[in-house]
Amino acid sequence: MNPDYSRFKKRLNAFKGAVEERLETAFQGMDIPHELLRSMKYSLMAGGKRIRPVLCLSWAAMLGIPENKVLDFACGIEMIHTYSLIHDDLPAMDNDDLRRGKPTSHKVFGEAMAILAADGLHTQAFYMMAGTDLPAKDVLQACAEMSRAAGPAGMVGGQVVDIMATGGGKMDLETLKIMHSMKTGALIRSSCVCGALLAGSCGSGQKDQTNAADYGASAGLAFQIVDDILDVTGDEKSLGKQVGSDQSLGKATYPRFYGVQRSRALAQESVDRARSSLKGYAGQHKEFLEDLAQYIVDRIS
Amino acid sequence: MNPDYSRFKKRLNAFKGAVEERLETAFQGMDIPHELLRSMKYSLMAGGKRIRPVLCLSWAAMLGIPENKVLDFACGIEMIHTYSLIHDDLPAMDNDDLRRGKPTSHKVFGEAMAILAADGLHTQAFYMMAGTDLPAKDVLQACAEMSRAAGPAGMVGGQVVDIMATGGGKMDLETLKIMHSMKTGALIRSSCVCGALLAGSCGSGQKDQTNAADYGASAGLAFQIVDDILDVTGDEKSLGKQVGSDQSLGKATYPRFYGVQRSRALAQESVDRARSSLKGYAGQHKEFLEDLAQYIVDRIS
Repeated sequence: MNPDYSRFKKRLNAFKGAVEERLETAFQGMDIPHELLRSMKYSLMAGGKRIRPVLCLSWAAMLGIPENKVLDFACGIEMIHTYSLIHDDLPAMDNDDLRRGKPTSHKVFGEAMAILAADGLHTQAFYMMAGTDLPAKDVLQACAEMSRAAGPAGMVGGQVVDIMATGGGKMDLETLKIMHSMKTGALIRSSCVCGALLAGSCGSGQKDQTNAADYGASAGLAFQIVDDILDVTGDEKSLGKQVGSDQSLGKATYPRFYGVQRSRALAQESVDRARSSLKGYAGQHKEFLEDLAQYIVDRIS
Repeated sequence: MNPDYSRFKKRLNAFKGAVEERLETAFQGMDIPHELLRSMKYSLMAGGKRIRPVLCLSWAAMLGIPENKVLDFACGIEMIHTYSLIHDDLPAMDNDDLRRGKPTSHKVFGEAMAILAADGLHTQAFYMMAGTDLPAKDVLQACAEMSRAAGPAGMVGGQVVDIMATGGGKMDLETLKIMHSMKTGALIRSSCVCGALLAGSCGSGQKDQTNAADYGASAGLAFQIVDDILDVTGDEKSLGKQVGSDQSLGKATYPRFYGVQRSRALAQESVDRARSSLKGYAGQHKEFLEDLAQYIVDRIS
């Protein structure tokens, strides 16, 4: 496999650049206590992969909506993702000291401020999303979709399944799959679906939403399997976090059930499924989404 | 003052009843981990005053939208309020053991689950609000308004101002006022404004939003002053929480700056301002909102 990623990476960096530029200005003109603003921006600008907003932007672009129209919504998704990482890292949860190569929020700002920085990002996410300059009907549907995916039946629920099983070794393969599909899968899937919903005024419909959901679910699963693999085989420096932390916490992972080689094959199958959801489309954005799916498996961090 | 509240209380209880009935069914048909659902409902159904949703419902009703049309949005507001209480009570924040006469969430479910129950309510709030069955343009504007008020420049920011000053005795009167206007004022004010925004299809406009904002800001300030007074003079049993907790935490309060008597006068002035924002309206909903403002000062819990 391993395609030549040079054109893909150029596009990926252009999308990432647009997201990061918008995130930088997201709080401008708002009267926010200085320390809160500092702690929110510390985590938000810590240099993530921006996979979720990029998925939203590129699905919307493939269906006809230019990227600048969807940027606020996409940045809202990244804020949701970032808030969830801050809370996951707290002492009461995973108690992580390092995230993306930097000390975690509570290590720098203390627990109270970390909790509130995340809460602030969580609410600001919906402020950004609700402000998207597209037909209100489409934006509202996308807000509902995203809040369902990020909520108690999605991302938050997945984190509960995770912490309730951690350490006790109680997680079987079935639970692991449910946990992944909620904790990381729901938000990645929904990022694609929201791209399709936001393109409603360009004629995007139910079939596109289904394709986006299928692509996102498969790409999300591949992403998670590879994350599990990298926790075993990865390089701490490229990853920017401790390796082996899942193992030391007794967490269930794909490699634990299937071994590394079979896990890698499962991730590739999932990527192939994601790519097959794109077969009805054409053009540069389709190619980008194909490469993005494959890149998820080939990445080293 | 002290009007005969019997008719008012009947209406208040009808509004409260409608809110609580809807809150009971808010998670139906959603696949939520059992323990998460239990912890969210524990706090949500702990019997608050439901002031915020009632304000939203009654402003919308006064401007022409029947209460059942706004119920989902109003319940979303109560979820935001509830999530903020759970996080405020955490050991890293106010470290409270008792809320509304019951052990706080982290005392019952542990810290990790309390954090996540609040996160789940926070996201579910926007799911409820976005699902409101009124013209998309109005609903979207109300979602944006509420997320601004509850976010880093509003409620979350107010909590940051509060915890940064607590204990250090650093809060002067000016900071106290800013803190209150953000921490509790913003959400109460916005509950009224959202009622006006949601009535857009009934011809409600900018002037109504301004009146709702003025009413809400004044009523919210009165509410907070009375809360401070009750922490000094109140009865633990009626309040359902420890009295004197603000004092023991060294928190700045209105009675500390003005004494109890002058604080009570300030609260009444604020209520009078709230009532004067209603002078352009008529009918039973106007009377209800007048009584509600007065009731805020006359309440004993």
